[in-house]
Formats: sequence, C-alpha cells, structure tokens
Amino acid sequence: MNEVLKNIQARHSTRVYDTQRQVSADDLALILQAATYAPNGMHLETWHFTAIQNPEVLARLNEAVKGAFARSAEPRLQERGHSETYCCYYHAPTLVIASNEPTQWWAAMDCACALENIFLAATSLGISSCWINQVGQTCDDAGVRALLTELGVPASHKVYGCAALGYAPEGTPTKEKRVKDGTITIIR
Amino acid sequence: MNEVLKNIQARHSTRVYDTQRQVSADDLALILQAATYAPNGMHLETWHFTAIQNPEVLARLNEAVKGAFARSAEPRLQERGHSETYCCYYHAPTLVIASNEPTQWWAAMDCACALENIFLAATSLGISSCWINQVGQTCDDAGVRALLTELGVPASHKVYGCAALGYAPEGTPTKEKRVKDGTITIIR
Repeated sequence: MNEVLKNIQARHSTRVYDTQRQVSADDLALILQAATYAPNGMHLETWHFTAIQNPEVLARLNEAVKGAFARSAEPRLQERGHSETYCCYYHAPTLVIASNEPTQWWAAMDCACALENIFLAATSLGISSCWINQVGQTCDDAGVRALLTELGVPASHKVYGCAALGYAPEGTPTKEKRVKDGTITIIR
Repeated sequence: MNEVLKNIQARHSTRVYDTQRQVSADDLALILQAATYAPNGMHLETWHFTAIQNPEVLARLNEAVKGAFARSAEPRLQERGHSETYCCYYHAPTLVIASNEPTQWWAAMDCACALENIFLAATSLGISSCWINQVGQTCDDAGVRALLTELGVPASHKVYGCAALGYAPEGTPTKEKRVKDGTITIIR
C-alpha cells in the first residue's frame, strides 16, 4: 500500500486531547489548505472554514451549544446542556467549523469532503482529530448564531460539521479499526 | 508537503475517459477498501458500495437515468433524457455507487467522506475520477430503482453520489486547479 492508502486507513477519531499542546500555525495552514482542495458542487466554493484556537472563544462556543441543548426537548441533549463537565469538542485545542450555503442541495456533502481532507491532512502530520456535530446541530439557535456571526461564519451559512484537532495525550492507546464485511458489491 | 497533502491537491475531476482501459481488480479493491475506512456517524457502516465494471450494465444504467430525465419537468434534464449521446458517467469504464439509509440525517455526509476517500485513493494509484450526481438524483425513479435493486443496492438505500473511475486518454491536459481566496478565518 502507498502512503496515501496507509494514511486513509490510519485516520481515526480521537476523543481525548492534551490541552497544553496546540496545533502549529504552519500545520493548521496546511490542513485548511487541504480542505479547500476538496471537490465541491460546480466548483462554486461557497463554503467557509472558521478555525478557532483561542481557549476562551472555544469555551464560549461550548457554553452557547450547551445553552441550546438546555432548551432542547430531547432529554439526552437537555442533560448535556446542564452538565458542568460536558465539552462538545472534547477539549481539543483547535476546532475548525465547516459551513456552507444551505440553498445548494449538495452543501452538506461539500463540507463532508472538506472535513475528510482535514482529517486526512491532520493524520499525515501526526495530528489527532474527530468529527464534531454539536455546533451544526445548534447553529440556528440564537445564542450560538450570534457567536458564530461574531467569529466570521457567514450569516447565510449553516454549519454542517466541525473538526476537532490536537494531540492525544502520550500513551493513549489506539483502538484497532474494524470495518464491517458485506458493504461492497462488484459487478464485472 | 508530504505525499498525502500533495495527493489531496493533485485530485481533480476528469470528464473524458479511455474506454479501452479498465481499472484493475487489485486497484479497485484498494479503492473500495479506502471507502470503507471513511468516518461515518456512530460507526454504523450502513453504507453500501456497488462497483460496476460491466459496459452493458453501465449502458443500461445510463438508459434508466435518461428515462427518468425524459419524464422530468425540468427542460434541461428533459433534453438530456432525449439526447442520443448523453452519458451520465462520461463513458468511464468503472462506476462506484455510494448508497446509505436515508433515515440517518448524516447519511449523505458519510457517503461524501467515503467518495472523497475513493477519489484520493484513485489519484494515488494514477486513476482519474469524477463525482457523478445523476444516479442519486434519479434513484427513486421506478426504472432506475428496479435496476439498482437488481445490481444489489439495498432497496431501503438512497444513492448519495457516485465515483466515475478510469484513465484519461493519453495527452489529456490537466486544468490547473484554482482555489478561491477568502474562505478561511483563523481565530487565535
């Protein structure tokens, strides 16, 4: 297998981060550049990538998401909203928000391709990552939206997903990835 | 830049294929394996990948898609449906259909990540590719659905996208990829 294929298989989700070890500016630039090279419908590139590396801003975003959860009708989300320890980005030092114009039916898929590029680029640089859904789930909540707008997420955009980025604490074991059988059919 | 980052930037869409040069069984296996290593919601792996390398089956799929287009209310699609030369997969020798359970709100994003892995794996193996939307757009048409079911696409699945795979004819020029400025915000 070549390096690209090996890297695709090496990518995995990390849900615990060393809060003292930040992603470097150079690595973040390479990762964000990789995002912009993803395929996107009609090559319109209407997406936006908002990377947050400021811990106070990240904490404010988490509080806003928790506020939205606290007002949810779903008991599981309500519980998260009232938890003192809940962190929607697993205390990762960097979060990249992928947003796009919802008027395009392919908007979510464009963001997903860009997020996969982010995860693969991060993996190639020894950086751990995880897909984060909670900002997208709450992006139409007034409190979350006000903060997103302040951060530069275009007001017309919906958030389709985020990437948590950072480093797993040393010695964190990597779970072996299991891939289900029976998901492939080949017709020759 | 490492090989993974270079490969992400090298990926591009190809819309003309050498119909005489098929993707090898070994390469197709690697590409499909890469698809199954994509992130997916709750790691449920409910997706299915249906790879077609048989030209008669591909031609039948194109006719079914054209039939659906011919019945469309949209003039542009109607025109494609009645065209003698229209080919929704650009005459690529291989087409991979990515489908998933529509009951999961993340179904389309799972397939998009898997398709991006397919494109990146193909690029790393010197194989050209293109995202194809038309089978997904028509997967609920009775004629298209009957053929999809015959091919092994689960009846409960929707098609979210396809990957055309093959080789560009020798000497095909590669358009330089332009990436728009202003799509990145970094908050430190």
